[in-house]
Amino acid sequence: MADNKYQEKHRIVYYETDVTGRVGLGQLVDLLMLASYDHSKAENISEEWVNEQGYGWVITQHLLEIKRLPKKDEVITLETQATSYNRYFCYRDFFVYDKQGELLAKMHTAFVLMDLTTRKIARIEARFVAPYGVVESRKLERLAAPEKLIKVDAKKNYRVRYWDIDTNQHVNNVHYFEWMLDALPKEFLMTHEPCAVNIKYEHELHYGDESTSLVQVDEKNKVTLHEIKNGATLSCSAQIKWRTYKA
Amino acid sequence: MADNKYQEKHRIVYYETDVTGRVGLGQLVDLLMLASYDHSKAENISEEWVNEQGYGWVITQHLLEIKRLPKKDEVITLETQATSYNRYFCYRDFFVYDKQGELLAKMHTAFVLMDLTTRKIARIEARFVAPYGVVESRKLERLAAPEKLIKVDAKKNYRVRYWDIDTNQHVNNVHYFEWMLDALPKEFLMTHEPCAVNIKYEHELHYGDESTSLVQVDEKNKVTLHEIKNGATLSCSAQIKWRTYKA
Repeated sequence: MADNKYQEKHRIVYYETDVTGRVGLGQLVDLLMLASYDHSKAENISEEWVNEQGYGWVITQHLLEIKRLPKKDEVITLETQATSYNRYFCYRDFFVYDKQGELLAKMHTAFVLMDLTTRKIARIEARFVAPYGVVESRKLERLAAPEKLIKVDAKKNYRVRYWDIDTNQHVNNVHYFEWMLDALPKEFLMTHEPCAVNIKYEHELHYGDESTSLVQVDEKNKVTLHEIKNGATLSCSAQIKWRTYKA
Repeated sequence: MADNKYQEKHRIVYYETDVTGRVGLGQLVDLLMLASYDHSKAENISEEWVNEQGYGWVITQHLLEIKRLPKKDEVITLETQATSYNRYFCYRDFFVYDKQGELLAKMHTAFVLMDLTTRKIARIEARFVAPYGVVESRKLERLAAPEKLIKVDAKKNYRVRYWDIDTNQHVNNVHYFEWMLDALPKEFLMTHEPCAVNIKYEHELHYGDESTSLVQVDEKNKVTLHEIKNGATLSCSAQIKWRTYKA
């Protein structure tokens, strides 16, 4: 079992928050990814070094639980730890704490290593993960997939912009959150808060690609189902459980 | 003359940079606006307090000069100072320094105070600016406007998303940069760097508004002219001078 934890503090600033002053879901995941980036750097297996070896870490799934979204000017602690890896996946846990040490959110993420030349998934060698203190496991985690949409209640179209792509030359995982949530009405977003998110990435999107954000809303159970499609190809799907929110 | 300077440090992180690892133009302005926000807070005339009085600070123009865009993981110093105010405008200077104290960028910005109820420009009372150490001047600065487009070389359409609006309930000034630059080809953005920017805000845009980003490219002089229009209404215009950039 790994006990190699990494922590850093972060102050939520205004441009990371929405019109209600709460951190955006995509921004929260950005902050957690930053903790992971800094952890890699601290262990001398930085993202830049991984890129130089011809590979890039790519997210395949996030499972997120949120007790409360942090607010503008709040100082939070981001914690992360690699938990295990097998032939093709590396798993990592993330925690967000408030000033008093109360848990605000946690996330479990599955990463794969992409060969930057073939753009195919590569076998994970120990040198890419051993410094995290994890040992190889034969166990593949069976993470539940988001439920499939059976009807479409709303949809919006998006085109991949210059600012959506990252150093892997594809749409960064957090931009999918913006497209998924933006397909919901503004009034809903201002009066609700996500409490559980399951997001699964299927196919990468590149600069200039057109995509459609589809959503099915189950008002009774406060669950929304999301798909980002590029033509007939499913790029990403998600299931979000909401609670009501009062400013 | 005011000598009330405010400084803070910031590490550029990966999600603030583009595919080349340089900070985005919009993100750079976001960071400078953060310094201004923190300056206000330090002087007990915070943005939140201004909002409680029924007003909001709104940008009317930025004049930006850039020697070099900071890069991922670089630690920069942000400095700001209010320079003067008159009946309707407050002016502020911004500076970005690298670790060695070299100037990387500077910006001069004009702000107006908007009445949040009537959404009209309000007269600036001393209580909103005096703590910055500025005194009222009768002089209105005559800042050159960006040159007008005489032909359109490219255009792209944008719809105001939930994440584009700020606590003033309109599109935040930095999102215009994303729309303006995204209308240029990716190859151009990856191989060029802005060295001077003049951006002027004319009419606010709200959630759901449709806008078009128009651009005229003067390749010989490396100047691009930009307009963001909502139907026939000019929302924002800009003139950007570029230099070539090698990664």
